[in-house]
Amino acid sequence: MKHFINPADVPNVQELIEEGLTQKANPLASRNLGKDKTLVLLFFNSSLRTRLSTQKAAMNLGMNVMVMNVGSDGWQLEFQDGAVMNGGKAEHIKEAAAVVGQYADIIGVRSFPGLEDREADYAELVIESFRQLAGVPIINLESATRHPCQSLADLITIEELKTKARPKVVLTWAPHLRALPQAVGNSFAEWLNLTDYDFVITNPEGYDLAPEYRGGAKVTHNQEEAFEGADFIYAKNWSSYEQYGQILPGNEDWIVSAEKMKLTDNAKFMHCLPVRRGVIVEDAVIDSPNSVVIQQAGNRVWSVQAAMKKILEAM
Amino acid sequence: MKHFINPADVPNVQELIEEGLTQKANPLASRNLGKDKTLVLLFFNSSLRTRLSTQKAAMNLGMNVMVMNVGSDGWQLEFQDGAVMNGGKAEHIKEAAAVVGQYADIIGVRSFPGLEDREADYAELVIESFRQLAGVPIINLESATRHPCQSLADLITIEELKTKARPKVVLTWAPHLRALPQAVGNSFAEWLNLTDYDFVITNPEGYDLAPEYRGGAKVTHNQEEAFEGADFIYAKNWSSYEQYGQILPGNEDWIVSAEKMKLTDNAKFMHCLPVRRGVIVEDAVIDSPNSVVIQQAGNRVWSVQAAMKKILEAM
Amino acid sequence: MKHFINPADVPNVQELIEEGLTQKANPLASRNLGKDKTLVLLFFNSSLRTRLSTQKAAMNLGMNVMVMNVGSDGWQLEFQDGAVMNGGKAEHIKEAAAVVGQYADIIGVRSFPGLEDREADYAELVIESFRQLAGVPIINLESATRHPCQSLADLITIEELKTKARPKVVLTWAPHLRALPQAVGNSFAEWLNLTDYDFVITNPEGYDLAPEYRGGAKVTHNQEEAFEGADFIYAKNWSSYEQYGQILPGNEDWIVSAEKMKLTDNAKFMHCLPVRRGVIVEDAVIDSPNSVVIQQAGNRVWSVQAAMKKILEAM
Repeated sequence: MKHFINPADVPNVQELIEEGLTQKANPLASRNLGKDKTLVLLFFNSSLRTRLSTQKAAMNLGMNVMVMNVGSDGWQLEFQDGAVMNGGKAEHIKEAAAVVGQYADIIGVRSFPGLEDREADYAELVIESFRQLAGVPIINLESATRHPCQSLADLITIEELKTKARPKVVLTWAPHLRALPQAVGNSFAEWLNLTDYDFVITNPEGYDLAPEYRGGAKVTHNQEEAFEGADFIYAKNWSSYEQYGQILPGNEDWIVSAEKMKLTDNAKFMHCLPVRRGVIVEDAVIDSPNSVVIQQAGNRVWSVQAAMKKILEAM
Repeated sequence: MKHFINPADVPNVQELIEEGLTQKANPLASRNLGKDKTLVLLFFNSSLRTRLSTQKAAMNLGMNVMVMNVGSDGWQLEFQDGAVMNGGKAEHIKEAAAVVGQYADIIGVRSFPGLEDREADYAELVIESFRQLAGVPIINLESATRHPCQSLADLITIEELKTKARPKVVLTWAPHLRALPQAVGNSFAEWLNLTDYDFVITNPEGYDLAPEYRGGAKVTHNQEEAFEGADFIYAKNWSSYEQYGQILPGNEDWIVSAEKMKLTDNAKFMHCLPVRRGVIVEDAVIDSPNSVVIQQAGNRVWSVQAAMKKILEAM
Repeated sequence: MKHFINPADVPNVQELIEEGLTQKANPLASRNLGKDKTLVLLFFNSSLRTRLSTQKAAMNLGMNVMVMNVGSDGWQLEFQDGAVMNGGKAEHIKEAAAVVGQYADIIGVRSFPGLEDREADYAELVIESFRQLAGVPIINLESATRHPCQSLADLITIEELKTKARPKVVLTWAPHLRALPQAVGNSFAEWLNLTDYDFVITNPEGYDLAPEYRGGAKVTHNQEEAFEGADFIYAKNWSSYEQYGQILPGNEDWIVSAEKMKLTDNAKFMHCLPVRRGVIVEDAVIDSPNSVVIQQAGNRVWSVQAAMKKILEAM
């Protein structure tokens, strides 16, 4: 595997899930694989889980890690070819990516969307520029439209917990006071579409995910219908793709409640965290034994560790 | 030792002081103890000495360290049970602590008091929540009301320098332009009360420390009386506990002066740093051979190294 | 070598360049030299290249690294003797340097000039105070008036690429919208003056570097004349030394253009990065095969690695 930016970079998703479970069972088995290799993590946006889990995974693989919070340092990059850089942008991506590539064997990049210009966000300029220009493998630590480290951890978690060969997995939109990216929802849909699970997306009208991400998944605007017989309820807010970056009025009743969970087949509750209690989900759900959000967060280590292992092996 | 949050966590203070001196004499003797263990440091407030000394101690014990300046990233936590999180707080401590516990073998937490609500600060909500919810040992890197890593370093320093079996140790309030926490003063009193030294606290009226921290220590509002015959003068400012978080008018003359030091028995001068020269202490005192503030700062490594060693041994 | 603050600290510049090339050829050959040694990097100003390259070099030498972004934490230092510290400055350099020296075997310091008080900036108070007070070797990660890690990397790059025993090296001022320090220009001149290259500085009137840095170098205000027959064009902006810290009107035509490059002897183009495309240099120049800016940035590792190796060997 050369990069870990989107599912198209992954030759075999099922094998990667297995690799995650293998790493979890024996975290230090590949500790010599990354020896004398350096991982640079570039955070254009803040991070807690992704940062700690990726650093931990890299150390398990024996790598050195250097972390840069470039966002807080105001490192504004120019992406346009031929730009006269006489404004706020101090460095062109052509130099930036190539220079970091001089100090890194693998680069992890986090960069959120602006949520103002849909076309620009969905062009994935930042992460794809690093792919083209850095000269070393790139790991997507959440880009404008995707969060593959999260999605792989989600699949590992479902694999661990499923009690049927083909569980019903429901991705449900849930309310939030801020306009959030579509990345986690997009990515979850994209990866789930690569499995043979019974996958359903439910969201209010106006919140349909981009067609190229939801793919052939079943979409319903009736949340209760979606919940019926579900084995996994995956809650996540995202802002509208159609009315790009907007929060549409209403829909507060899309909270995942104990009442709605009764419609499921004793479903596990999942969320990528951080989660707004009382807004996204009722306390009674997230505090119940069926909530697997902490296990899911823990699996972030094995997800990125599996991906880095595949990348290191191919170097 | 399971945690290092307050003295009640320490089975034997004298043994811990000895351990600090042992670590100092041979810093790398336990380098295999922390192998493949990860320390996560969470700073809700900024830190220089505590951060560097704790990182250094962890490396001496062979641990990996991940540092998060969560304060600057604006990671606002909700602590209230049942809260509807529809405001500025993005994550509940229930998830936050448990998630970090997934990536850490030990967590160090720094979180200062708000100095507005005495009851809330003295409930030690942040550090005690991590104790209850993280699932791994917690080290107190300065909480709302305590700074045990500092106090243990102070005791190590006194132990190194004392020339009498039972030295007279004086904690003196000193002026400052900002309202500071009581944590260092509280902690010093609390730990000194566990020794058999002759311990005296002196502060202006209105600045008495909380009864549960000063315990049975002698308290006098007459600074000169306190200094008489002292072997150690430990200066520190704190805001009022009685008029909570306030700076009371006057008291600028409580500066530790060369004149006052003459009343002592050639006492050593101590301060946890950073120190305001010309406000807390005169240059003539801190620049004298009797000033031991740098040695004291150096001992911060051995203090936390001793505590982490005990925790690692008990894991 | 005791410190790496300015060229006077370097016994033999040519040998240090050779050491850089040796380290580049075999990055991990000295991996045991820094074992159990700790490097502390203090950034009073932000850093990308310097931070990553220095961390990388330290890891190649087997050192532990602790990074502090002290600037963003607002750690304001007092430098004046006898100051009454009753304002914004929380710690005196006397304590600050000595304390960090307790936790470090080597300290790297970055601290930019204020560009308001020329005498103060050129006194190099910050870095020289660390030299005097920290008690351990100091590495200059760009001070008010110098950037030796950059200059040594520049010399290593020229040494790698030169096709004549005595190449013509031209340092040319170039336009920029912000008032920048003279440090890179100063340092490049200072180091080039220690070689036997044919060294020419060209800048607009009013932009002459400080006499003690440009030394005996040829200075011309005619850029085209300077470019004639050059083997290396090194572009860099700096604010005026004469009208201290100012940007003088005009001079936008000092951009390094493809047209001007034709005057050279097929010169290599160099810049320390980040670079403003279309302002400092035309795309046609920096995108040409003669641009060596990425190689130059990569050599930042070997430059500081060579310096640290010499320091470690002398400890």
